[in-house]
Amino acid sequence: MKKGIQHARAGTPIDHYLLIKTATKQIASNHKPFLTLILGDQTGEIEAKLWGINEKDETTFCNKTMVHVRGEVIDYRGRLQLKISSIRQVTADDHVKIEDLIRTAPLQKDDMLAVINEFIFDIRNPNLQRLTRSLIKKHEQAFLESPAATRNHHEFMSGLAYHVVSMLNLAKSIVNLYPDIDQDLLYAGVILHDLGKVRELSGAIDTTYTVEGTLIGHISIIAAEIAETAKELHIDGEEVVALQHLVLSHHGKGEWGSPKSPMIREAEVLHLIDQFDARITMMNDALVNIEPGQFSERVMALEQRRFYKPAFQKTPADIL
Amino acid sequence: MKKGIQHARAGTPIDHYLLIKTATKQIASNHKPFLTLILGDQTGEIEAKLWGINEKDETTFCNKTMVHVRGEVIDYRGRLQLKISSIRQVTADDHVKIEDLIRTAPLQKDDMLAVINEFIFDIRNPNLQRLTRSLIKKHEQAFLESPAATRNHHEFMSGLAYHVVSMLNLAKSIVNLYPDIDQDLLYAGVILHDLGKVRELSGAIDTTYTVEGTLIGHISIIAAEIAETAKELHIDGEEVVALQHLVLSHHGKGEWGSPKSPMIREAEVLHLIDQFDARITMMNDALVNIEPGQFSERVMALEQRRFYKPAFQKTPADIL
Amino acid sequence: MKKGIQHARAGTPIDHYLLIKTATKQIASNHKPFLTLILGDQTGEIEAKLWGINEKDETTFCNKTMVHVRGEVIDYRGRLQLKISSIRQVTADDHVKIEDLIRTAPLQKDDMLAVINEFIFDIRNPNLQRLTRSLIKKHEQAFLESPAATRNHHEFMSGLAYHVVSMLNLAKSIVNLYPDIDQDLLYAGVILHDLGKVRELSGAIDTTYTVEGTLIGHISIIAAEIAETAKELHIDGEEVVALQHLVLSHHGKGEWGSPKSPMIREAEVLHLIDQFDARITMMNDALVNIEPGQFSERVMALEQRRFYKPAFQKTPADIL
Amino acid sequence: MKKGIQHARAGTPIDHYLLIKTATKQIASNHKPFLTLILGDQTGEIEAKLWGINEKDETTFCNKTMVHVRGEVIDYRGRLQLKISSIRQVTADDHVKIEDLIRTAPLQKDDMLAVINEFIFDIRNPNLQRLTRSLIKKHEQAFLESPAATRNHHEFMSGLAYHVVSMLNLAKSIVNLYPDIDQDLLYAGVILHDLGKVRELSGAIDTTYTVEGTLIGHISIIAAEIAETAKELHIDGEEVVALQHLVLSHHGKGEWGSPKSPMIREAEVLHLIDQFDARITMMNDALVNIEPGQFSERVMALEQRRFYKPAFQKTPADIL
Amino acid sequence: MKKGIQHARAGTPIDHYLLIKTATKQIASNHKPFLTLILGDQTGEIEAKLWGINEKDETTFCNKTMVHVRGEVIDYRGRLQLKISSIRQVTADDHVKIEDLIRTAPLQKDDMLAVINEFIFDIRNPNLQRLTRSLIKKHEQAFLESPAATRNHHEFMSGLAYHVVSMLNLAKSIVNLYPDIDQDLLYAGVILHDLGKVRELSGAIDTTYTVEGTLIGHISIIAAEIAETAKELHIDGEEVVALQHLVLSHHGKGEWGSPKSPMIREAEVLHLIDQFDARITMMNDALVNIEPGQFSERVMALEQRRFYKPAFQKTPADIL
Amino acid sequence: MKKGIQHARAGTPIDHYLLIKTATKQIASNHKPFLTLILGDQTGEIEAKLWGINEKDETTFCNKTMVHVRGEVIDYRGRLQLKISSIRQVTADDHVKIEDLIRTAPLQKDDMLAVINEFIFDIRNPNLQRLTRSLIKKHEQAFLESPAATRNHHEFMSGLAYHVVSMLNLAKSIVNLYPDIDQDLLYAGVILHDLGKVRELSGAIDTTYTVEGTLIGHISIIAAEIAETAKELHIDGEEVVALQHLVLSHHGKGEWGSPKSPMIREAEVLHLIDQFDARITMMNDALVNIEPGQFSERVMALEQRRFYKPAFQKTPADIL
Repeated sequence: MKKGIQHARAGTPIDHYLLIKTATKQIASNHKPFLTLILGDQTGEIEAKLWGINEKDETTFCNKTMVHVRGEVIDYRGRLQLKISSIRQVTADDHVKIEDLIRTAPLQKDDMLAVINEFIFDIRNPNLQRLTRSLIKKHEQAFLESPAATRNHHEFMSGLAYHVVSMLNLAKSIVNLYPDIDQDLLYAGVILHDLGKVRELSGAIDTTYTVEGTLIGHISIIAAEIAETAKELHIDGEEVVALQHLVLSHHGKGEWGSPKSPMIREAEVLHLIDQFDARITMMNDALVNIEPGQFSERVMALEQRRFYKPAFQKTPADIL
Repeated sequence: MKKGIQHARAGTPIDHYLLIKTATKQIASNHKPFLTLILGDQTGEIEAKLWGINEKDETTFCNKTMVHVRGEVIDYRGRLQLKISSIRQVTADDHVKIEDLIRTAPLQKDDMLAVINEFIFDIRNPNLQRLTRSLIKKHEQAFLESPAATRNHHEFMSGLAYHVVSMLNLAKSIVNLYPDIDQDLLYAGVILHDLGKVRELSGAIDTTYTVEGTLIGHISIIAAEIAETAKELHIDGEEVVALQHLVLSHHGKGEWGSPKSPMIREAEVLHLIDQFDARITMMNDALVNIEPGQFSERVMALEQRRFYKPAFQKTPADIL
Repeated sequence: MKKGIQHARAGTPIDHYLLIKTATKQIASNHKPFLTLILGDQTGEIEAKLWGINEKDETTFCNKTMVHVRGEVIDYRGRLQLKISSIRQVTADDHVKIEDLIRTAPLQKDDMLAVINEFIFDIRNPNLQRLTRSLIKKHEQAFLESPAATRNHHEFMSGLAYHVVSMLNLAKSIVNLYPDIDQDLLYAGVILHDLGKVRELSGAIDTTYTVEGTLIGHISIIAAEIAETAKELHIDGEEVVALQHLVLSHHGKGEWGSPKSPMIREAEVLHLIDQFDARITMMNDALVNIEPGQFSERVMALEQRRFYKPAFQKTPADIL
Repeated sequence: MKKGIQHARAGTPIDHYLLIKTATKQIASNHKPFLTLILGDQTGEIEAKLWGINEKDETTFCNKTMVHVRGEVIDYRGRLQLKISSIRQVTADDHVKIEDLIRTAPLQKDDMLAVINEFIFDIRNPNLQRLTRSLIKKHEQAFLESPAATRNHHEFMSGLAYHVVSMLNLAKSIVNLYPDIDQDLLYAGVILHDLGKVRELSGAIDTTYTVEGTLIGHISIIAAEIAETAKELHIDGEEVVALQHLVLSHHGKGEWGSPKSPMIREAEVLHLIDQFDARITMMNDALVNIEPGQFSERVMALEQRRFYKPAFQKTPADIL
Repeated sequence: MKKGIQHARAGTPIDHYLLIKTATKQIASNHKPFLTLILGDQTGEIEAKLWGINEKDETTFCNKTMVHVRGEVIDYRGRLQLKISSIRQVTADDHVKIEDLIRTAPLQKDDMLAVINEFIFDIRNPNLQRLTRSLIKKHEQAFLESPAATRNHHEFMSGLAYHVVSMLNLAKSIVNLYPDIDQDLLYAGVILHDLGKVRELSGAIDTTYTVEGTLIGHISIIAAEIAETAKELHIDGEEVVALQHLVLSHHGKGEWGSPKSPMIREAEVLHLIDQFDARITMMNDALVNIEPGQFSERVMALEQRRFYKPAFQKTPADIL
Repeated sequence: MKKGIQHARAGTPIDHYLLIKTATKQIASNHKPFLTLILGDQTGEIEAKLWGINEKDETTFCNKTMVHVRGEVIDYRGRLQLKISSIRQVTADDHVKIEDLIRTAPLQKDDMLAVINEFIFDIRNPNLQRLTRSLIKKHEQAFLESPAATRNHHEFMSGLAYHVVSMLNLAKSIVNLYPDIDQDLLYAGVILHDLGKVRELSGAIDTTYTVEGTLIGHISIIAAEIAETAKELHIDGEEVVALQHLVLSHHGKGEWGSPKSPMIREAEVLHLIDQFDARITMMNDALVNIEPGQFSERVMALEQRRFYKPAFQKTPADIL
């Protein structure tokens, strides 16, 4: 078996460090309390029941606790479940860090920051460069750690920065092929388009939406920050309006959360490459464990389609 | 005939002061230039052709010029047109003001400001009151003069303030009938919801959308200003998020331009009374010249419906 | 704990009078029959299982029976359930009336009738007044007891009359603010718009749709009754057509069940205030038990939105 | 050239009896009044201008007047127009009847009535038979003359009865092939489904919608008449509800004007064969003058499609 | 009780031959494996659990095995389940054929083939006749056995041929009533329209979609086969294009899977009678066990509607 | 003025070679025939009237004739028109080729063929390579000359090949950035996806849809050719199904003309880069003559949006 909880099947014995992602107290039909735990590692997550708990257990085995678990994976009514035989909280002697137990982007934070700074350096328009640099500076730490979403795609630690890096590389290729596109405006838009997520989402572990995120949304949050930063930096050229427009319109249309549709060439391009990276990423995630000749599960955010891996695609290209 | 260009019919002689709303130079089939003028007064507008013009005419009869016109209204291919027999620019001796020639709200600016200030005074939550007062102060002059739109409803001078006053009166009735509603938040939302139009629209005469208005929109403009003003006033309670949410969601859903749907009770109420005032106003405009027993023209913004005035509605209530 | 089943939590002991809303016989995996009961009082309802029943129990504990129950509320797979320790049918000595165990409008039937009659009195157009009065007379008893729906809003005893009273008060405010509106036609429309529900719904307890209600619908039912009543009263002015139109169009458009969209000013207003009262009521219901700083459950009929009660709304306005 | 105005082309000389369908007075750019006439015969219609008219002409050449015209068809800006050289009102000596100048169903009224009465005779359920017979009796004359619509299909004299006869024949075939269908209910539904059009439409010539038709619609009109007639005949079986349901649901769904979707087998069948006859008829109309190997004009009511007549369809089946 | 598993109720004893439609191995909470079986006969299917299985049982009781079962039907959480007391594989001595245990069309394969061949004989256009005959020949066996779908309608053995026969009879009636329709093209289209299903579906038992069926679809499969067959038969008249068009457009529009909407008269008719036969069949299936005065279950493919059988429909027409 | 009819303004004198794209005979109000000509060169087209024509003119100045025209551009009712002072047919002495007078791709046909052949060479899967090579071979000449559409984008000579070359370059970049993508399948899909247009469209000049193109469409045409070619080449691996699927699904969904949505990774990528190239191209076309600080016309195929060129985009990147 490949390492990691995602690869476990019914019958797999477990002897793992895992993170309690959520712990919910319930009452069994015999009136005794028990905990339903969602346990995860870098590869995925699994449900487990902790029966016959006492009050101390409730306190010990709470959200975001790292634990060591022994047990076995079983098939319970068609879904996999971890049957716990022993569980204990991790101690300093275990030398386990929380980053080891949650899914994280495949690139290091520092490397991603270096790439992004190079692209900022390539922005020749001084207004756009200063706005972009200043906003990234302001949120640097959160930006490098934040997921890009709570589900669907890039829903893991540093997913936001990873999504931006992928889009920047794509943007560079496209600017080379279609030279009418304004590289400066596009790069600035790519780097800032989802930055509002550092306030919309609650952080890297057990990510939820903040009240502000739910009521205002990352699009309006960052649009307002651009206005504010421009004022601080005494920038008032049309670059401010254009950059706000790119951010506001990057979901493409009203039904998808953008108060304006793209009306600048680079706004349309930003929307297209954002979609492109998201859709490819969701397909890759859906197909990663699928054998040639098989269909994936339905992917909700891709119009509920299933994807087929043709039988002739047996090349190394399938291996991540 | 009632006074005003709106009431003219084919055959009506014209001897009026009118405002040139737009003037467009064209070339006739005999190769001679002519001007197509849209001429208006407080009641409406009409098209006219000015034939055989010279270069001086082009300069004289340009957009936003007040003129005195003699001529006759004719039916040209099913539409009314003003056939000009003489036209001259207005001079100081005519004692005509531009306000006399454009449609204006039925209330005076000062009276509307007084009403709005009373409602601001009734906002007991200090954060909401200070935010509202400060933003109105900042844009007071433009707010009192701006139309609420370029067409559909309240598309006249001071239309924005008039729309706000009508909605405040409606809000007050509704708070009395449904006491769970938070009066403070609702009043603040009503007063600020369309304030971004002072930057979205170009002003009271020959109103168009500014570049910023087209690319950002009044909703995002004012949402950003609320954030900025809150920072200036050192307000950081949840009132700021709530008020931004009311403004962002007041169009009701994405298809209608709101990046968020209403998720606070007062946000839903704001959306409903905004719609209510707009729809009643559009119906009243459509029916104002309709006889009992007749249908109005189709109203585009009311799902292209025509409205019928029942034959038994012969009471003074029909007269504006 | 506030009184009433709606306020019970896991662990709450129960010693209550309750109404059996539905009783369904099922077979357990040990082949023994049991009953699944939905038990309710004025505040809400809860599921319970009655194990090991005999034939007499089946007869005794049927739909619409009042019972006294002792037991405890438990959490069963994430939903609350009442675990019955004893249950008996109510006797005359208990002095419990069915009205005490079902949700009822907050106003008395007689008071609501008085209000409605005053509004009928205010209808000056004799044709509209006679039609309205006659139809209310014909269905008076059922009208005062009927719920306005089986779910969503005003889905309780006398909910229909309560909805009409709320709308009349709203209509009165609006007529004052927008005097072009024909008060007579609007009041008549408000009073009659949902009257077909007395034939569409099965009554106040365990409300379901009748066959006629399902196949014809309350809108067409009352439109036909207006035609019929007009004939009986020898009224044939355009008031009959107008009133039928108000009733037919009050859902706003075809997708929502109206064969015609509003094409008379008062028809549009009727639709808007019907929506207004329904939406406010659903939000109030959703928020009634929500603490400041929390979100409600999703409200199906409000586009599945959740509603947030801002943390600063700690005033008495939150208490019903 | 085939006979009739529909077959005229640019250059065709005209020496015809025609009906003035509409006459509209307009003012030419030389200030002189003229009439725009829509002139028709049994095959179609054409526009004409009557220049230099006096007051008597206005009175003489009004709507629904039969005239004799000489002139020539011309191409004016891409559309055909009749250039009048002489025009006079028809006199008794011309021996022309209005029926000769308007499009009429291809069957005689008496023959259609005979067919319909046979089908009524075949309804064995006495309640359904009596309801159907009584309603047809009540509106017999108007029913036999009314068009089925103002445009799209069966928009000619006696079009309503012709549409019903076609549908009855189709219904008979279908009942034979699918014997589960209740012939009685289906026949009754077919005969009555559009009967409300006798009050919705203004009659056979220059057909428009009545006020009642616009505000109530033929569907609700006949549903109410069924209720009323049942009361007169003392019928209160479920046949009344079922028949009302068939009529109410025959447009299929809300967006198409039905307040209820079909929920009885025969209601669905009625909807399907109504659609079937309408769609075939519209296609036949569109293709009647099309040569093999050519496309028709776009047909608005058939989703704006054009229809192609294959080159191999050169058989007599193409000739009406 | 009527014979057949569809008619069983809780408490019904079972002593039947049944077909294992699917067998799924699962692990119980006591770690022991068990099988969930879906068992069917000609009338319907039911779930059963086979507890405490050994490895031989797994092999014996696999998909598409015929078994004899004794046991009893129980109500398990609101759904019927078969509680097995004994189960054994069928042997030659049982004289049971698989056709006896799966739902099959009510007509014999040979009879249906004879009907279809008669209709082919009636196609006078030689190109259309040869194309149709050749394609039916090529797939004769599969065509006569295939279901028309995996669910919704005609989802049983020989369902495809049965659907075609019903549609041909309907087509014949319609050609008689509307003689403009080209009988040859319509018959050819009816016979071939769904023939691609012989490659789209996996066969008559436990029908699923093939990979080719999922990725290409029966519409494009048969369109390509028509092109190919025409080439083999050296036919290149417009009949080939027209016939491909009928097949490609028979679902009516893009959202329903047709790359082209009908643009030939016979294409529209094919679409309409395909819909007609499908909708009538689904309604008949939904109503077959419904008592007069009752509603059916919701029918997914008929816009989730329930259907009502009127109380007065007590005639033999209700009995299949 | 830049060279070419697209750059002419009212008043521009014309002394040009032009191609008659369409010539339509009409009758003026003075009964004399005239021709409406659409005249074009490599940059665009303009309308002209040729008055007072004789029968020889009709024959001379027909569709697809090259002419030399002298005259002047005028503004006629807001649209530009060419006022002809002299016109004559081109003779051999003019040394003008039709390619000089129609818009053509910016790359040479031979160069594009070379690029495409290199990409075919890079397809390592032999089945995919042979299918692609064979189909391009079969249609080589038409493929290199065909436009990609009649309007919207790449609607010029060799537009199809140019679109394919742009997409191949984009595909290459994307395969580098997302190595999970199967390069072979993607390249084959890009090259073949629109090849059916060589039969769907009538050729490079005055392009219209063929009957086959209208009734079958380029998607189904090429899907059938892939099946046929595979049979000829004795290829029956899953590559055939996969390649057909890519072609069938490349419009993304049913509403846009694809009978299947993408269900293979490379199918989704093909759809995305097809859209990408089309949308960028349409935006570039819309913005090519727009000054910084101005909006373009509305672009129909881009959801009727107008595009803004920011005032700060004054760099050489704007110049084609």
